[in-house]
Amino acid sequence: MKVLLIGASGVIGQAVHAHLSARHEVLTAGRNSGQFRVDITDDDSVRRLFEEASANGPLDAIVSAAGELHFGPITEMTAAQFNIGLQNKLLGQVRLALLGQRALSDGGSITLTAGILSREPIRQGANASAVNAALEGFARGAAIDLQRGLRINVVSPTVLTESLPSYGDFMPGMEGVPAARVALAYQRSVEGGQTGRTYFVE
Amino acid sequence: MKVLLIGASGVIGQAVHAHLSARHEVLTAGRNSGQFRVDITDDDSVRRLFEEASANGPLDAIVSAAGELHFGPITEMTAAQFNIGLQNKLLGQVRLALLGQRALSDGGSITLTAGILSREPIRQGANASAVNAALEGFARGAAIDLQRGLRINVVSPTVLTESLPSYGDFMPGMEGVPAARVALAYQRSVEGGQTGRTYFVE
Repeated sequence: MKVLLIGASGVIGQAVHAHLSARHEVLTAGRNSGQFRVDITDDDSVRRLFEEASANGPLDAIVSAAGELHFGPITEMTAAQFNIGLQNKLLGQVRLALLGQRALSDGGSITLTAGILSREPIRQGANASAVNAALEGFARGAAIDLQRGLRINVVSPTVLTESLPSYGDFMPGMEGVPAARVALAYQRSVEGGQTGRTYFVE
Repeated sequence: MKVLLIGASGVIGQAVHAHLSARHEVLTAGRNSGQFRVDITDDDSVRRLFEEASANGPLDAIVSAAGELHFGPITEMTAAQFNIGLQNKLLGQVRLALLGQRALSDGGSITLTAGILSREPIRQGANASAVNAALEGFARGAAIDLQRGLRINVVSPTVLTESLPSYGDFMPGMEGVPAARVALAYQRSVEGGQTGRTYFVE
């Protein structure tokens, strides 16, 4: 399969790349690195990405491990701060799905990245809880509306073992999962037959 | 209790008003009607609403039954269209929570409105599925971060019996629920002790 991986340089992206590239042709994209550069908050940038990545034939899978959130106490949070996650991790990934569907071959798949905070909230994490839950809802809703046998799923990992040194203090007592295990869920989505699913990895 | 009801003129808002005003002092707000006018997509407008509504003392509950979504096939949907629901029903109601928390007395509550499409998707409903799920996630996340004993919940009704003539064709075979039954869930949220909950009414 020909797979386009957006957010290829992150901890998840690297693990997905390592796992999938042994089995498929994986094209990489990112804000500052990868074969293609893309700003997922910008329609034109995303449109150009898919034009370039599918210039030699349609993609079979789009995988996104990209997007930013806002973390901060709800008592001080502004609507503009909350909108960061809406415009970036949520609408940015939705944009990849909306514009990417046309670059996919029949039966192709879209896999987006959410996260455990949708159902295991942490302090200062209200934006993440909302955005991750929205991505799960989006996949459920979009799945029954996509055409040509296209599928869409979401992977929702808990904190990565590799990220515990950076984020562990915000997630007291939460068990990490190695990125290599998380990468399996992306394989399930890309190679499997399900749609509208959220794959929780914890 | 002193309750501020935003979106008071809608089908749900009217039922909530009828039910709660027999038991509490209910102030009404809306875009084009009610004691207070408010544009929930605008920080200044929402800030002014809470200043005016709490001028004679803090509120005990904020109830929102406001917000717009985009409906349309995923194959044609643009990011800008998807953003309508994000900016209106989602961020609009989040803004009410973020700015409203300061107008609440200790132990006061915030109740927002989501909807069944988060878990029962319909065709053309991807925006609604995402936004409604996000509101559920937001309540879970915000609940553990609010201070002074403030609570936050979401009511997620299925299609209203009263709305079946307008929307029934988009929700084939889905059973309606009378707005008067939905209003009970708002009472549970306002008068009960739970927080971070979604009350499904179906």
